[in-house]
Formats: sequence, structure tokens, C-alpha cells
Amino acid sequence: MFERKGQLFILSGPSGAGKGSIVKEILTRREDLFLSISATSRTPRKGEVEQGSYVFLTREEFENNIRKSNFLEWAEIYGNLYGTPKEPVFKALEEGKNIILEIDYQGALQVKRVYADAIFVFVLPPSLEELRQRVINRNSETEESLETRYYSALEEIHYLERYDYFIINDILEDSVNKLDAIITAECCRVDRDILSLIRSNHWKPKE
Amino acid sequence: MFERKGQLFILSGPSGAGKGSIVKEILTRREDLFLSISATSRTPRKGEVEQGSYVFLTREEFENNIRKSNFLEWAEIYGNLYGTPKEPVFKALEEGKNIILEIDYQGALQVKRVYADAIFVFVLPPSLEELRQRVINRNSETEESLETRYYSALEEIHYLERYDYFIINDILEDSVNKLDAIITAECCRVDRDILSLIRSNHWKPKE
Repeated sequence: MFERKGQLFILSGPSGAGKGSIVKEILTRREDLFLSISATSRTPRKGEVEQGSYVFLTREEFENNIRKSNFLEWAEIYGNLYGTPKEPVFKALEEGKNIILEIDYQGALQVKRVYADAIFVFVLPPSLEELRQRVINRNSETEESLETRYYSALEEIHYLERYDYFIINDILEDSVNKLDAIITAECCRVDRDILSLIRSNHWKPKE
Repeated sequence: MFERKGQLFILSGPSGAGKGSIVKEILTRREDLFLSISATSRTPRKGEVEQGSYVFLTREEFENNIRKSNFLEWAEIYGNLYGTPKEPVFKALEEGKNIILEIDYQGALQVKRVYADAIFVFVLPPSLEELRQRVINRNSETEESLETRYYSALEEIHYLERYDYFIINDILEDSVNKLDAIITAECCRVDRDILSLIRSNHWKPKE
């Protein structure tokens, strides 16, 4: 309709809330939405390089990029570094593409410091009981480690207040519809781009 | 899903932008959305009382209500008073209903002072040329009065910056889809209600 920057959407929420399924589904539905690619210092598994699911860096390269503030967010998980390179995300946004990032609340807080214009969406399980059930169903860890995961999920939920939107993920399709609506709505938000277009008196129907 | 206040949506935009058609269509689509009823001091036309399209007040009653700040917004148009009574709107919002109000920018600015939590949506014609055409097609006024309406519409557009969302109304169905998405998204907004629910640790799947 007119030249406009894309929007960056951050989807987070506790493990077991169902972020992954929502992201997978929304990407099939919207042609204007792209998943950001992560970088990692871990060794690629068989076939992973070809799939392009990660950018593989050596630990030294990764740490260099951290020093140069080249990541939107990064974290060390079980001894490996994971992060979202800034440059491809910013380039895609400039081209008018919408980008979605599925990260935990710590990553989301990092993004908020670097790019406050991002839209923060928090996915909740339908209830505490359901959260516990999903954590249990998901894996076969020991009782203790399940409890740990459950309580860390509970703790994470209290970061909800730093987010713009919430989705209670009961029925997957409803949740995807909601995220879809949030993306469409955010594309209708009054911002600098539309204001300067209007002030120039040059807006026109889409070609 | 849980007890929650409804949202108040304000739709405005210049005459000729197509607000009326969008409102008519969105009301058929969403069961959770209701049109607010206006009050007026003008004499009812035949059948209007039965239709319930307006609350008819005497001029004295209307002015009394203005003095008591009983209106969300009001205006005098061609010697008649028109306004939106606060009480039924606030009652409906408390009951969790979403309300839509179709008013001009002056009314919208009044609502903003009284109820800043409202969501402000501005409808734009697809281009200046199209706006001029729609103003011309709409009625058979003199050339001069058309020019006046056109320039006042242009002036009105500059109030866009006071709004939350914009919709460029080119194809009606696209515009209704956008408004629909805005309403759904706003129902997913993180606010006091959801935060206190989460803090109480009592959220549950919808019955």
C-alpha cells in the first residue's frame, strides 16, 4: 500500500505453553511473515548445515560478534552459545518484511533494550494444571527436574507485564487466529511512516 | 475465558472515508461488539422512536445532562444536540461487551479526555483524489460547499496522529478484516485484568 518498515514480533512464554506449534502454523498462513534465523556455536548435527536452520559459528566467531553487539539477543545454554544476529533482521524489516522470533523471556528482555519497537507477545498455557501436565508429557526427566521446570515456568509468567499481548493457548487454531490478528492490527498502527505519508499528501491506493 | 471489561472502539475519519459501511459490516460479524446509541434533542422522524435508533430528549433534558457531564461526547449540529450517554456505555463495558462508536474527530477528542482507555481508529480514503470523488458522488451540493467539505476532510486527516490505528478504506472487505483484527488484538492486550488474574494463580481454561 505504501513503503513501510516491517514489524518485529517476539513470541515467548514458558516451556510447555505451545509457542512452537503457534509459530509453525502462523508461518504457513502469512506470506508477509518470516522466522528469524539463529546463530549457534554448537556443532551442527547431520544434515543441519544444508537445512539452513542455524548459522553455525565457531565459539570464537560467536564471541567476537557478542563483543561487536551484533546480536539482538544471545544466551549460553548447556555450554553452547545461541543468538539472533541483528543485521539480517534489520535488513528484512527495512524491506518491509515482518519477522517473528521465538525466544524465552530473558531473550525478549534483551531485544527490548536493543529494539523497543518490537511487539512482545506472551503465550500462556490455559491453566496451571495444564502447564504441569504439558511439562510432564513433554519428556521423561526425573520428578525433581520436572518440578524445577514447572516452577521456573511459573516464575516466567510473572514477566507477562513486560509484554504487549498475551495469548492463552487452549485451542491451537484460536491461538493462531489471535496472533494473526495481532500482526494485522500492528500493521495498522499509526506511526511515523503513515504520518509522514499523510503529511506529504501523497497517499494513493495500492498499485 | 475470564472476567474482563469490554473495550471501547472509536471509529472516525473524514466524511466520504466510508466509516458507516465498515461499522455496519463489522456489527454483523462480531457477536461481542455493540453499537453505542446516541441521544439527540431533535424531533424524531416518523417511526424513529420505535426503531430505537436514538434516545430522544428535549433540549432542556439534553442540556441538563451536559451540565451533569453525562455524555462521553456531544455536539450541536445544525441547531440540534447529539451526544453519547456515558452510563449505558460504561455499563456495557463492565459487562464485558465491546462497544463501537462512530463519531467525528472532535467527538473522538472529547472521548479521549473522558475515557483515555478507548481505542481510536481512523478511516482514510485510499487517496486524496478518491476522497474528492466520494464527496462529489455523495450529494448534489453546490461546487463551493463540496470544496468546503473536501478541505475540511483534508484538515481532519491531520488529527490522525491522535489515533492508535488507521485503516485505508480501499476495498470494504479488507477494511472490515482489519478492524476485526484490531478488535481481536485489543482483546489480547496485557492489562490490569489479565495481570491480576495471573498473579492470583487462578486462570483456567474457558468453561
